[in-house]
Amino acid sequence: MGNNHSYPKTIVTFGEVLMRLSPSENRKMVQANTLDFYFGGTEMNVAASLSNFGLYSKHVSTVSNDFVGDAAISFMRSIGIDVSCISKVEHPLGLYFMEVGASARPSRITYNRLHGAFANIEPKHVDWESIFEGVTHFHWTGITPAISEKAYNTLKKGLEVAKKNNITITADPAYRSNLWQYGKDGHEVLKELVSHSTIFIGGVNEINEILGTDFSVEEDSFIEASKKLIEECPSIEKVFDKLRTGVSASWQKIYGRAWTGAEYITTEEIEISSVVDRIGTGDAYAAGLIYGLIHFDDKKALRFANAACGLKHTILGDVNLVSVEDVLEFMNGNTGGRIKR
Amino acid sequence: MGNNHSYPKTIVTFGEVLMRLSPSENRKMVQANTLDFYFGGTEMNVAASLSNFGLYSKHVSTVSNDFVGDAAISFMRSIGIDVSCISKVEHPLGLYFMEVGASARPSRITYNRLHGAFANIEPKHVDWESIFEGVTHFHWTGITPAISEKAYNTLKKGLEVAKKNNITITADPAYRSNLWQYGKDGHEVLKELVSHSTIFIGGVNEINEILGTDFSVEEDSFIEASKKLIEECPSIEKVFDKLRTGVSASWQKIYGRAWTGAEYITTEEIEISSVVDRIGTGDAYAAGLIYGLIHFDDKKALRFANAACGLKHTILGDVNLVSVEDVLEFMNGNTGGRIKR
Amino acid sequence: MGNNHSYPKTIVTFGEVLMRLSPSENRKMVQANTLDFYFGGTEMNVAASLSNFGLYSKHVSTVSNDFVGDAAISFMRSIGIDVSCISKVEHPLGLYFMEVGASARPSRITYNRLHGAFANIEPKHVDWESIFEGVTHFHWTGITPAISEKAYNTLKKGLEVAKKNNITITADPAYRSNLWQYGKDGHEVLKELVSHSTIFIGGVNEINEILGTDFSVEEDSFIEASKKLIEECPSIEKVFDKLRTGVSASWQKIYGRAWTGAEYITTEEIEISSVVDRIGTGDAYAAGLIYGLIHFDDKKALRFANAACGLKHTILGDVNLVSVEDVLEFMNGNTGGRIKR
Amino acid sequence: MGNNHSYPKTIVTFGEVLMRLSPSENRKMVQANTLDFYFGGTEMNVAASLSNFGLYSKHVSTVSNDFVGDAAISFMRSIGIDVSCISKVEHPLGLYFMEVGASARPSRITYNRLHGAFANIEPKHVDWESIFEGVTHFHWTGITPAISEKAYNTLKKGLEVAKKNNITITADPAYRSNLWQYGKDGHEVLKELVSHSTIFIGGVNEINEILGTDFSVEEDSFIEASKKLIEECPSIEKVFDKLRTGVSASWQKIYGRAWTGAEYITTEEIEISSVVDRIGTGDAYAAGLIYGLIHFDDKKALRFANAACGLKHTILGDVNLVSVEDVLEFMNGNTGGRIKR
Amino acid sequence: MGNNHSYPKTIVTFGEVLMRLSPSENRKMVQANTLDFYFGGTEMNVAASLSNFGLYSKHVSTVSNDFVGDAAISFMRSIGIDVSCISKVEHPLGLYFMEVGASARPSRITYNRLHGAFANIEPKHVDWESIFEGVTHFHWTGITPAISEKAYNTLKKGLEVAKKNNITITADPAYRSNLWQYGKDGHEVLKELVSHSTIFIGGVNEINEILGTDFSVEEDSFIEASKKLIEECPSIEKVFDKLRTGVSASWQKIYGRAWTGAEYITTEEIEISSVVDRIGTGDAYAAGLIYGLIHFDDKKALRFANAACGLKHTILGDVNLVSVEDVLEFMNGNTGGRIKR
Amino acid sequence: MGNNHSYPKTIVTFGEVLMRLSPSENRKMVQANTLDFYFGGTEMNVAASLSNFGLYSKHVSTVSNDFVGDAAISFMRSIGIDVSCISKVEHPLGLYFMEVGASARPSRITYNRLHGAFANIEPKHVDWESIFEGVTHFHWTGITPAISEKAYNTLKKGLEVAKKNNITITADPAYRSNLWQYGKDGHEVLKELVSHSTIFIGGVNEINEILGTDFSVEEDSFIEASKKLIEECPSIEKVFDKLRTGVSASWQKIYGRAWTGAEYITTEEIEISSVVDRIGTGDAYAAGLIYGLIHFDDKKALRFANAACGLKHTILGDVNLVSVEDVLEFMNGNTGGRIKR
Repeated sequence: MGNNHSYPKTIVTFGEVLMRLSPSENRKMVQANTLDFYFGGTEMNVAASLSNFGLYSKHVSTVSNDFVGDAAISFMRSIGIDVSCISKVEHPLGLYFMEVGASARPSRITYNRLHGAFANIEPKHVDWESIFEGVTHFHWTGITPAISEKAYNTLKKGLEVAKKNNITITADPAYRSNLWQYGKDGHEVLKELVSHSTIFIGGVNEINEILGTDFSVEEDSFIEASKKLIEECPSIEKVFDKLRTGVSASWQKIYGRAWTGAEYITTEEIEISSVVDRIGTGDAYAAGLIYGLIHFDDKKALRFANAACGLKHTILGDVNLVSVEDVLEFMNGNTGGRIKR
Repeated sequence: MGNNHSYPKTIVTFGEVLMRLSPSENRKMVQANTLDFYFGGTEMNVAASLSNFGLYSKHVSTVSNDFVGDAAISFMRSIGIDVSCISKVEHPLGLYFMEVGASARPSRITYNRLHGAFANIEPKHVDWESIFEGVTHFHWTGITPAISEKAYNTLKKGLEVAKKNNITITADPAYRSNLWQYGKDGHEVLKELVSHSTIFIGGVNEINEILGTDFSVEEDSFIEASKKLIEECPSIEKVFDKLRTGVSASWQKIYGRAWTGAEYITTEEIEISSVVDRIGTGDAYAAGLIYGLIHFDDKKALRFANAACGLKHTILGDVNLVSVEDVLEFMNGNTGGRIKR
Repeated sequence: MGNNHSYPKTIVTFGEVLMRLSPSENRKMVQANTLDFYFGGTEMNVAASLSNFGLYSKHVSTVSNDFVGDAAISFMRSIGIDVSCISKVEHPLGLYFMEVGASARPSRITYNRLHGAFANIEPKHVDWESIFEGVTHFHWTGITPAISEKAYNTLKKGLEVAKKNNITITADPAYRSNLWQYGKDGHEVLKELVSHSTIFIGGVNEINEILGTDFSVEEDSFIEASKKLIEECPSIEKVFDKLRTGVSASWQKIYGRAWTGAEYITTEEIEISSVVDRIGTGDAYAAGLIYGLIHFDDKKALRFANAACGLKHTILGDVNLVSVEDVLEFMNGNTGGRIKR
Repeated sequence: MGNNHSYPKTIVTFGEVLMRLSPSENRKMVQANTLDFYFGGTEMNVAASLSNFGLYSKHVSTVSNDFVGDAAISFMRSIGIDVSCISKVEHPLGLYFMEVGASARPSRITYNRLHGAFANIEPKHVDWESIFEGVTHFHWTGITPAISEKAYNTLKKGLEVAKKNNITITADPAYRSNLWQYGKDGHEVLKELVSHSTIFIGGVNEINEILGTDFSVEEDSFIEASKKLIEECPSIEKVFDKLRTGVSASWQKIYGRAWTGAEYITTEEIEISSVVDRIGTGDAYAAGLIYGLIHFDDKKALRFANAACGLKHTILGDVNLVSVEDVLEFMNGNTGGRIKR
Repeated sequence: MGNNHSYPKTIVTFGEVLMRLSPSENRKMVQANTLDFYFGGTEMNVAASLSNFGLYSKHVSTVSNDFVGDAAISFMRSIGIDVSCISKVEHPLGLYFMEVGASARPSRITYNRLHGAFANIEPKHVDWESIFEGVTHFHWTGITPAISEKAYNTLKKGLEVAKKNNITITADPAYRSNLWQYGKDGHEVLKELVSHSTIFIGGVNEINEILGTDFSVEEDSFIEASKKLIEECPSIEKVFDKLRTGVSASWQKIYGRAWTGAEYITTEEIEISSVVDRIGTGDAYAAGLIYGLIHFDDKKALRFANAACGLKHTILGDVNLVSVEDVLEFMNGNTGGRIKR
Repeated sequence: MGNNHSYPKTIVTFGEVLMRLSPSENRKMVQANTLDFYFGGTEMNVAASLSNFGLYSKHVSTVSNDFVGDAAISFMRSIGIDVSCISKVEHPLGLYFMEVGASARPSRITYNRLHGAFANIEPKHVDWESIFEGVTHFHWTGITPAISEKAYNTLKKGLEVAKKNNITITADPAYRSNLWQYGKDGHEVLKELVSHSTIFIGGVNEINEILGTDFSVEEDSFIEASKKLIEECPSIEKVFDKLRTGVSASWQKIYGRAWTGAEYITTEEIEISSVVDRIGTGDAYAAGLIYGLIHFDDKKALRFANAACGLKHTILGDVNLVSVEDVLEFMNGNTGGRIKR
């Protein structure tokens, strides 16, 4: 529980820290006068989840040099994340507003991030060589290079250093079409960055975005797509996918599948019929996967990731506030809601 | 979004503006110390919903001449409703308390409205001739004439002027037995008022109340009842019904059906398994229908009304805070809760 | 509704009054800064429920001599419980923290009660002879003797006096393994105390704990277990069980069954798909049973108990804030959530 | 602390129970979406305060036969008030809205009470003979006869019975000009009712209203007015006045003075520079006076009343939630805010 | 109270609409998890205040094309502001965070506005010619030209058109040094814009900023500075100043003074010892002044402005939610906090 | 801002971590249903304040092995406190309830700590030798040895090791008479422990408690008392006192004075007229003093301590959430509440 235990693994994540602002109780913005707030950001969510799993995680980012940035740092510290490589800059912290949906009404999000603290990060602010000392894992997502050219350049340099140091690189290259406003072609950039990575967290949609292919969602097609990805980006060793069926905004089903390079594996489907918070469930999956691949075989890692993702649906906020024991228990089928005293 | 666009249609509604007071978080009154409040009222809810759909709507009413009445007017203005025909009188605003149910526990409502601002409205306060200038639609419900003789007389005069001006009159003549305390026979009054109207929003129960018949709920019987109604009240052109099945207070199914004068039409059944707020769903249906009949054919209008009603179950408060786009998307089956960014 | 009506029955309960502290909105403790609080305690919950059912109930306990104890007494008074036999002592009120689960995430509870006001009760503080004057029913649970030897001794003396006075004694002898820290063998103590009682509220698990048997959960086995219990503790006349299936923390199914000494009876299964609060549902069952056995035959009493238990899942807090009419309506199948005006 | 201790004195109060609804945090109604609520009513506030002082108090009233009325009764029970003479009727509970002022902004109140449960009370509902058995004190205010003729008649009958039984009658005959809408002349009625009373709680304003005189506020004039009052209403023995200077809505100064029939007495001035809640401070004074006159000499009673009034300014809600010890400590000058552990 | 009354005067304001986000209850950001939000913006605050005073006011601005912008428009509509000249653009709404101070702790504000909706306004979006039809007053502040060159250009064009149309132009040219990041010299720009204006709302600090002078705060110096300003910017007719003494963040004193071109006038000092909200007090002063100059002589206008400013300290949020009657009453010395029923 | 900067000084504190539970908005417990909670504890408050001042601080303690203890650790991490020497034990976290006073009503506190996690700490749990490596300062208070013999023994051992290592030891030996329930004489114990210390934070009351003397509060007497203390406990070098005058719970004045061994020094009096939170103001003084003595001369250190104490009155919670810059600014007289943008 302390700060300086000798953890077996050290994970570095890199990305924007965002403030989320949501009217509480499913209110729409026009009928609210208070907002709940949380700190998140897809990569930081992964760092936080891994810290909650007992691993040592360090997040690299920039935040605003004001009391909002201070609160973001305070939050990360509270989770146990190493914040020593977070700089403060004279730009506001990125943020997003969310109207939380319910049942047939989808959640809505609107961003204010393109001129924020992280969009203004510069490669020179980040000393990747020293950051990666003693580090075993590096996690990035497709959101970071989509925010600004500076963010892209900083990430690219990080990936090069990480690759040179033989660090395991997990990539979650989601392509978000309403980002990428600074001029680069997102598809090309993502392919380039995936080519530096080891583990691909994504499915046929993500592969299609990167390779310009048109694979369908069926099992065979997923295997084929995975093989094609590995062919084009040979540093990739394994492909981990997650499939979601939405009965409604409040009722979701998910299961995981993967191509391990050697075989196709899959999990049971998890059903969450009273969703508390949908945000960060993909990051919970990624964190579960990273933890799982360190401690378990591929099949169990995939099940652990899927269970971690499922549990996140029951946790408010962007970050998965659960322990390894919580995930294992859920994974082992204890889902009936018996009170734990 | 402004106040003075030239909207294609102008709707007038007439009825009480009520304050709703509910303990939050499903609390019962005895265990609460705060109450959430909303403004509603069945006819104003329709005006509000139509304003949110982009139509110009004007609500005619009286409110208390105090800061409670001011807040009611402020709310209506916030929605974009034209409040220039709302008077202030020296009687308190009508209100109701609601304990919000959950699962197998039904919601409970208790009213304080029979001596309020609206119950004391007088025909002379409302200049119907000038109000209906340039107006195409008038909507009324069976609640208004049930509150007080003054309210009944004012409504009756309005219907006469509206009919004279060939305005489309939509009637939602719900018979509420615990009202009608001032001496008139509600069944007779409603039949009289329906006889001035064009569109009947109701089913066999409402028809039976008005005609003293005993039709059952089956399809054939509904068609027969509709024909009988049109026979007795020949100004009625179409009958639009809504059927609800309650799994629990938190889980509702609804579908629409109608007799268009020419054919029987019906919609798919919508299922809302995590109800946020049940109040005003009938008004959402009425507003959806009015909008639909202006813009679509009968079948699509009915589906639009049903979808609007379904979405209202996901919105807190009495008023349906959704746009035409929201309803269309829901109508087109996008109900899986995918986040909209 | 007053304090001094001549109620037909007077129930005495004896046990700890606890404060519950929970982060609201399903928050985990690390992300909260306010806590909702409620007063509960398994036996007081029964007294409260019976008071809400219109019976006269008196709770015997000790609370802290400070503003927290004052608030506990104020709460009990608000429910109509006779608090004249509650003493104040110089120890803090027992309490527990609860993180409320949702869906697949179970609720968690941690207690602070072993050195509290009730753990320090002494037999000399309670004048059982005078307390039981005019009393017809006494209810106890297995929690009380598990807290401290003083509590055990006080209860034991109470049971002896009650038995002597031919009072109907209902026993809910749940064995909680993480209590019983003061040295006594819980199984033996519970058997001893059950031997003074009339009605056994529990199933095969509870019987196995007490008798050291190994009955399984099937119907035949339950009947056999009940007979065995009656054989070993001949004061017991009837055994009332409740079976729960948890789809998730938010979705529960329950039904009741009983061995009446003469026959096996059972109820339909109740399904609560949007659980508001799980705490105190067992106490709601016990209270429903006590009320039912006074007013109805065994079968109807069992159904009343099961319905009371089901309704409690929709009420926030530890206490079942429902009336006899509410339970009967639910029992009669009015569960579709129609608003009551 | 129980219900049935043998208290040395029993006080009866009679009057409306009102719900107060206020936006929290000094919000104005137009900018709020929740309301804090409290139960009050000038006479019930006195009963509550006396119950908190350890006396046995019984409040006589009618409340609505719904969950709002239930909550009012629950509140009174929580305070320890005997509610056995409160009836339920089919009219809504009276209520008022309050925008809480601050500094230079005054609080605003608007009422909804003239057609409520209490306005519809009838003399036949109240069995004064049995209510006054064993009772030593009866307290009434000028609000009750101002609400409705029924309320006036019921009060008048009560005063007659009380007088016949030699009960000490305290009168707080505030004349509120915006009440008295049912036709009677308030000044005459109040004079009539004061003529049945023993202790007059009021100053020159109240005397002027009743006698139609024009005394000024100075000491000599107050003494003269008091003597005149006793001359005209010879049952009055003593006159207790309270003078308030408002620096702002948040900063108030008060002191008491009295004509005891024999001498003029006065208190030091109390200063409250951070007012929490102004409502019910007059009732706190009245309750303090009643308690004081029972236990102390006139001078100390007046100081106790003034201190009780002062403390109420620091308590949220309509009711003075303080003990005799709290008042004595304040009276003795311990006002520096030292924490009590 | 409606939308389309024929008001005697129409005021146009132009400027950013900002969302304010503050932890409630004086919390610092690091210890909060919810934020209260309000809509403000110095010029919109003036429009809102004038609308509350019964004048017709139209605000010209751009907001974000998302649910945050919708909520801003909804707020302005609720106040009665004409929003028909507000455009929606694809940039986020400007916002600021505020930690509310108390006593010796100052409030802190951090902005996120330099790349928002209003910073991206363009002259072509605003049709000043049509906007100013029938308008009598135009109000601007020094914040607008400081945000972006586009905002400056749009304002400048507006001033030219207004001047051409002989509209009364009130200028509140506060120089905020941490704005003006786009390259222009704020001092020069402000002088240029003041040269188009009629009424100068500011004191020696503002004059010094604009003219590069070094006048001190004394009365004589203020008069001299005012004369100098009128000499340099001859369209200016009058100079209205406001002086503030802060005992603490919670205790403020203010008074007004002016050079009317003919004489020096001044007001009594107002003291607010329990400040509720400091934001927008300057805007309340400006609005009070505009209203006052329309309806009263200079001296009374100044006193009205000062009183409006004082009252705003008691109102939560950015906007002064008070009526003309409220201000007059305060102006007339009714500040003792007597409850208004 | 990171975790592992090389700070110039490392402070160790040792003591209980307590949860505070308070009804919000000045409510009394009987009228609340939620509680705000904070983590505090006199020594941890000092560690937190020093961490906020930029020093490296490590707190030594035990917390409960449950989600409440986790939340306590999370809070300390959020502040930047080194939590690596905090153990988890199977006892509940100590806590206290507080009713927050206002104006003339004092705050009330009731504790639940005597059987908690910290009361059960044992010397063997704390490896003082390793903890004090590289440490320059150790702070203790008189609360710790008063809780339990185990706590006393653990502290005593720590003081011995600290003294051996020539660490500066600051002592805040408040004698709290309602603690010390385990049998030791508090006066003797405190004298023993002070004899190991370097800086005495306390005044004549504390000296009288320890030495059994009877010094009065005047300046001369304070100097004499300080000299006497240094005579009896020669390791003490300086004595720092703080004097408080309470106008009311909401209005406090404080100033500092000291005997530095060489001279008597004193500060101006600070006045806080709108107190937000009184708790932890003494700890804020102690932390200010420790920081001040490291960075400034004695006089400035005393003024810094006094200003830090003053500012804490404006901060919610137990911990002083202010920076060195905040304190310096306040110290320099910027107390007028000007908004900082």
